[in-house]
Amino acid sequence: MRVLVLGGDGYLGWPTAMDFAAKGHDVYVIDNYMRRNIAQQTQSEALIPLPNLNDRAAIFKSLTGKNIQVKIGDCADYRTMENVFREFVPDVVVHYAEQPSAPYSMMGFEQASETLNNNLNATMNLIWAVMEYAPKCHIVKLGTMGEYGTPNIDIEEGWLEIEHKGRKGKFLYPRAAGSLYHTTKVLDTDLIWFYVRTFGLSVTDLMQGPVYGLSTNESDQDERLLPNFHYDDIFGTAVNRFLVQAVAGVPLTVYGKGGQTRGYLNLRDTLQCVDLAMNNPADEGELRILNQFTETFSVNALAEQIQRVGNGMSLNVEVKSIENPRKEAEDHYYNPAHSGLMELGLEPNYMTDEVVASMLEQIIKYKDNIDSSKIMPRVKWK
Amino acid sequence: MRVLVLGGDGYLGWPTAMDFAAKGHDVYVIDNYMRRNIAQQTQSEALIPLPNLNDRAAIFKSLTGKNIQVKIGDCADYRTMENVFREFVPDVVVHYAEQPSAPYSMMGFEQASETLNNNLNATMNLIWAVMEYAPKCHIVKLGTMGEYGTPNIDIEEGWLEIEHKGRKGKFLYPRAAGSLYHTTKVLDTDLIWFYVRTFGLSVTDLMQGPVYGLSTNESDQDERLLPNFHYDDIFGTAVNRFLVQAVAGVPLTVYGKGGQTRGYLNLRDTLQCVDLAMNNPADEGELRILNQFTETFSVNALAEQIQRVGNGMSLNVEVKSIENPRKEAEDHYYNPAHSGLMELGLEPNYMTDEVVASMLEQIIKYKDNIDSSKIMPRVKWK
Repeated sequence: MRVLVLGGDGYLGWPTAMDFAAKGHDVYVIDNYMRRNIAQQTQSEALIPLPNLNDRAAIFKSLTGKNIQVKIGDCADYRTMENVFREFVPDVVVHYAEQPSAPYSMMGFEQASETLNNNLNATMNLIWAVMEYAPKCHIVKLGTMGEYGTPNIDIEEGWLEIEHKGRKGKFLYPRAAGSLYHTTKVLDTDLIWFYVRTFGLSVTDLMQGPVYGLSTNESDQDERLLPNFHYDDIFGTAVNRFLVQAVAGVPLTVYGKGGQTRGYLNLRDTLQCVDLAMNNPADEGELRILNQFTETFSVNALAEQIQRVGNGMSLNVEVKSIENPRKEAEDHYYNPAHSGLMELGLEPNYMTDEVVASMLEQIIKYKDNIDSSKIMPRVKWK
Repeated sequence: MRVLVLGGDGYLGWPTAMDFAAKGHDVYVIDNYMRRNIAQQTQSEALIPLPNLNDRAAIFKSLTGKNIQVKIGDCADYRTMENVFREFVPDVVVHYAEQPSAPYSMMGFEQASETLNNNLNATMNLIWAVMEYAPKCHIVKLGTMGEYGTPNIDIEEGWLEIEHKGRKGKFLYPRAAGSLYHTTKVLDTDLIWFYVRTFGLSVTDLMQGPVYGLSTNESDQDERLLPNFHYDDIFGTAVNRFLVQAVAGVPLTVYGKGGQTRGYLNLRDTLQCVDLAMNNPADEGELRILNQFTETFSVNALAEQIQRVGNGMSLNVEVKSIENPRKEAEDHYYNPAHSGLMELGLEPNYMTDEVVASMLEQIIKYKDNIDSSKIMPRVKWK
């Protein structure tokens, strides 16, 4: 299949591109290096040195003989998107081309506006490029579990059947996200659903939880093929920040009460999910929504596990609570459905102690690169 | 009060500005003339000559002695918005600064992208200008009943209490709009609700149905103060198109079956509603949503009334159905709540036969300006 990956330099985009190329697909990636630029601007550089996208594609080719076609360009510019679709008419597009940092989107007007315009225009341009140049193309869009927020009712997979005053209807599950970044993903969903129901596009929206891990079949072959690993407050997830704090010998910093519960998944499972979505496409005129995570746990449970495994490796790990820079519920109901991808065949890789230990070992190799001042929150929601 | 009207050249913006100025408020209007430009580009000029905004403000001042401060500038540009807020710190902002044509938003990529970027950025810039320069300011934003679409359940006023698997929650009423323009208003709502709940803004969202009429206390004083009157397929509502067809002696063109039902209101009632919203502001951290219309009827019922009144004026009116250029339900359930504004004191001006007759009389004065080729649909949803 001809696979176009938007945002192919990213933490998920690059492993996805390698995975599809390794499986024999024809892969084209585009990226505008927004994350690299923001990382430089905010002094949030990745822990592990990261060759540029062209160099990584060359390294991958030298090791595997497989080609990944690279373009550095901006998906939020329609002429660029059109040129890509004229050059490479895809069977499937995997859309990761979004500014992904919640704290960055909350820094101030410029960052909020940049996030809104980048994310909405990348999605709008993709919709139109598909309609104009590849109408049969299946769009696999990455949403986020964060679109739903933490409602007091069970979270279903994208849709909700509502009975109201004796009548029934089926609607997009109501969304209330916790940052401007997450809100732009809500807008993406609304926008794409309009075009799907009006023009019959075929779209799968993967509502993903936080992803962890560095190991994939391809990245394990050469350290230079590892995905980016951020541990700072801008791009780093709680998992990455805690792992690096454990290695650096500073306390794991839990935001507030630590009862914030989310659905997590292993990087290897993201690759499985995107592959399953591609091989089982949505119907024409269907917006298929799948909740993409394999297990839920609280920030406290996560900190405890990393502490336990780290102490087993003689790291002497402490945990402390700090003031929460975000506005979020720290103790809440959370029961999200996630059977759709299991039914398609997902075989989960859970966050076992062995998985945590192997991530810690990977980080220990780069311990000298850690700047623990980058981990503390620099952006407040107020 | 210091009232800032965004989109002050528009069909509603201009009467609102005059109404507030006549009542003694300090009024500042900004407009980028987008509607005038699109009207010229698409050969959709208004029926009645329309002096530019500075000239209208001068005419209004010469008649009433009241000042309306005018700026021609783009709300989608943040520097422009900032400069307005530095110059004129408002107590209330009425936000009409959106590209309002559904058919225009469906013409092609350029028009869709222009609509998305104009509408979202105007709203985003307003939110940030309020947060940075006038945090106590009450935002009165014009939404549209079209955000809800035509669901199979009763439409409530903005919010819906949902019981699901034995648990309860309150959510934004689910929205599914019928054009890209209407969808941008859904995105506006999602965006503003994020900032309201996160930063405690005070916002009233008026979900308005189609507005009709030219007569207000101020516009009745001088024809040069009339709001714009569009009867073309781009900016003209069904009411305006039918009125002009009746006068021109061509059949009223009902799209499809004509069972499309909407909630309508008189221009005089829009002024009342905005005034009521301003004088009864939303609380801090509240997104108050009010459905703004006074009566519902189908397109067929509208055509029949205009035919009956027109025939009483010897216009010999015919009605015919034409292929529907839009993708919409032509026969559907529709039961929207609208008690909120009545409870605040709205006294409706219904669409009586006298009101229809007076609109026909107004149009007859400008009969020579009618170009009936502009009325037929030029934009299809497919």
